[in-house]
Amino acid sequence: MALCSMRNTFGRWRFIRALHKGPKGTPAVQKESVERVFSGIQPTGILHLGNYLGAIESWVRLQDKYDTVLYSIVDLHSITVPQDPIFLHQSILDMTATLLACGINPEKSILFQQSQVLEHTQLNWILTCMIRLPRLQHLHQWKAKTAKQKHDGTVGLLTYPVLQAADILSYKSTHVPVGEDQVQHMELVQDLAQGFNKKYGEFFPVPQSILTSMRKVRSLRDPSTKMSKSDPDKLATVRITDSPEEIVQKFRKAVTDFTSEVSYEPASRKGVSNLVAIHAAVTGLTVEEVVCNSAGIDTAHYKLLVADAVIEKFAPIKSEIEKLKMDKDHLEKVLRAGSAKAKELAYPTLQEVKKLIGIL
Amino acid sequence: MALCSMRNTFGRWRFIRALHKGPKGTPAVQKESVERVFSGIQPTGILHLGNYLGAIESWVRLQDKYDTVLYSIVDLHSITVPQDPIFLHQSILDMTATLLACGINPEKSILFQQSQVLEHTQLNWILTCMIRLPRLQHLHQWKAKTAKQKHDGTVGLLTYPVLQAADILSYKSTHVPVGEDQVQHMELVQDLAQGFNKKYGEFFPVPQSILTSMRKVRSLRDPSTKMSKSDPDKLATVRITDSPEEIVQKFRKAVTDFTSEVSYEPASRKGVSNLVAIHAAVTGLTVEEVVCNSAGIDTAHYKLLVADAVIEKFAPIKSEIEKLKMDKDHLEKVLRAGSAKAKELAYPTLQEVKKLIGIL
Repeated sequence: MALCSMRNTFGRWRFIRALHKGPKGTPAVQKESVERVFSGIQPTGILHLGNYLGAIESWVRLQDKYDTVLYSIVDLHSITVPQDPIFLHQSILDMTATLLACGINPEKSILFQQSQVLEHTQLNWILTCMIRLPRLQHLHQWKAKTAKQKHDGTVGLLTYPVLQAADILSYKSTHVPVGEDQVQHMELVQDLAQGFNKKYGEFFPVPQSILTSMRKVRSLRDPSTKMSKSDPDKLATVRITDSPEEIVQKFRKAVTDFTSEVSYEPASRKGVSNLVAIHAAVTGLTVEEVVCNSAGIDTAHYKLLVADAVIEKFAPIKSEIEKLKMDKDHLEKVLRAGSAKAKELAYPTLQEVKKLIGIL
Repeated sequence: MALCSMRNTFGRWRFIRALHKGPKGTPAVQKESVERVFSGIQPTGILHLGNYLGAIESWVRLQDKYDTVLYSIVDLHSITVPQDPIFLHQSILDMTATLLACGINPEKSILFQQSQVLEHTQLNWILTCMIRLPRLQHLHQWKAKTAKQKHDGTVGLLTYPVLQAADILSYKSTHVPVGEDQVQHMELVQDLAQGFNKKYGEFFPVPQSILTSMRKVRSLRDPSTKMSKSDPDKLATVRITDSPEEIVQKFRKAVTDFTSEVSYEPASRKGVSNLVAIHAAVTGLTVEEVVCNSAGIDTAHYKLLVADAVIEKFAPIKSEIEKLKMDKDHLEKVLRAGSAKAKELAYPTLQEVKKLIGIL
């Protein structure tokens, strides 16, 4: 499975603090009532500390901030690279359990499976007829992905940013949490919305990025890189479902430096600073508080403190995931109910689009 | 509107006599009960003599030959080039009226509008994830179309052969009437079906082409080329809705040669032979009978005889089209009913596909 090629899909969209930054300097949409947040996550791969702190915690917070919040398990994006059907099917349910355990609340947000809302792919086709090939071929991610591979990627891997646009525009979404690596794709979404509006009259809000202001969670083994589910070094990435023993082992082996003091100097001491940042994030303390509390502790000892804090943070989530995974029927019911709600929003949008372009 | 770029979509698929030719030497499907015919026609553009004799007359005949016959007005293919929404919307209804007037019988076949069956575009996405870019870029039609244009075509124009495959495979179709210019696209459909079967187990019948054995209807002004709706010479193409005066004028101006005798020599006398072929087709006589009956008549006079035969053939169709076009509600009802029937077949197919790939 070419995990590398999945790096920059929705699964990696990150945000922490909502910065309402309009596209190309346009002002943020003012009316709270029409604000809709959309984000998606690929089902494949177990959530890790980076995803959790970088995205999911904020997804939970956004549920209370916006009236309409949609979170989609984007299974149709995951098939742009080969998948084992049994693994993929299980992953969809596992991701549902994980999101619920992390605090995504189906009473507050619409949690749904992308492929259950057929409107996405029809809007995708309509948008595919509004974009020219070089625009997609020039996207950094396509170039990076195909450069790494012996063969060209699938056409799905080339055109998935258009499906992302359809995902977002199907709900006339106004705000989309994204990581920096998705800025180019958001420009594409904005261009497609503006292009449609120019041709057929104002219809789509031009969705705005909600950018993360938090520093990335870094690999425990190479703090110059991001923590990633596809890291070949098993010790680099802490998964939400790791056992306490595994978590301790991973933090014990975390790469730091030869200074024993705990300090937060992200430019010169990436390894230790990453531990401090994680520690602060999982305890809810500030970086300064964490550093102050750790005075006199050496980094070897400090690693175990951070490990304990992570174990404590993940324990109830892990236990809830296990519980939820036992009840497949419930998970499927949640997805069906969410998909039905999503369809209620996507259907009229698509009908209006079809009327505007002349096929309804 | 870049009509040239629409030349080789479904609208041009032609067939006359059903030749059951399996792909790459595979035997024809034997069980009549599971045979399903699918074909599509773009809504834009009025039917002309070439379409009528080359495809629609045979569509009518196929209704009695196969249990399940689906004819789709493929509006999602027509938007691969820019369309005026009002014109497009009217064209869908006009094409419905025309097909009904020509003898497509909703009691015998499923006549429907492609975009009303959302399953097509979801299967299209799934297939898009199973094909690599160069395969599409090497298709003759894409190369020919982009060579003619200043800019590259839309991504829809590149990927529409995959949507064609989804159109066909959504119904597990076994037979597809095609013209010679669609042979390469049919190979793509067959490869996608076989590729899917190889990966997920036997599921799709590999659809077989029903190839036309009839000679093309040629332009009246340049008999070395096919009669085409996008011919810039207005006199080259006889439309099904032309007035008797227009039809007479077009045949009167038909390019023949300096021999006054009527004969059928398609290699050396393309112009006259085209008239003889048209004459035979619209009267139901053989070419030999037509030539025999025309002994002693010079070509100038003969042109008027052919014009009269075409007028006589089209008169009841034309009158029925006019009548049907008056009743928009009826046309919409026919399409809705057909689309509901099509959905009944496409829905379970897509569900099974989704189960096989692991997203259901």
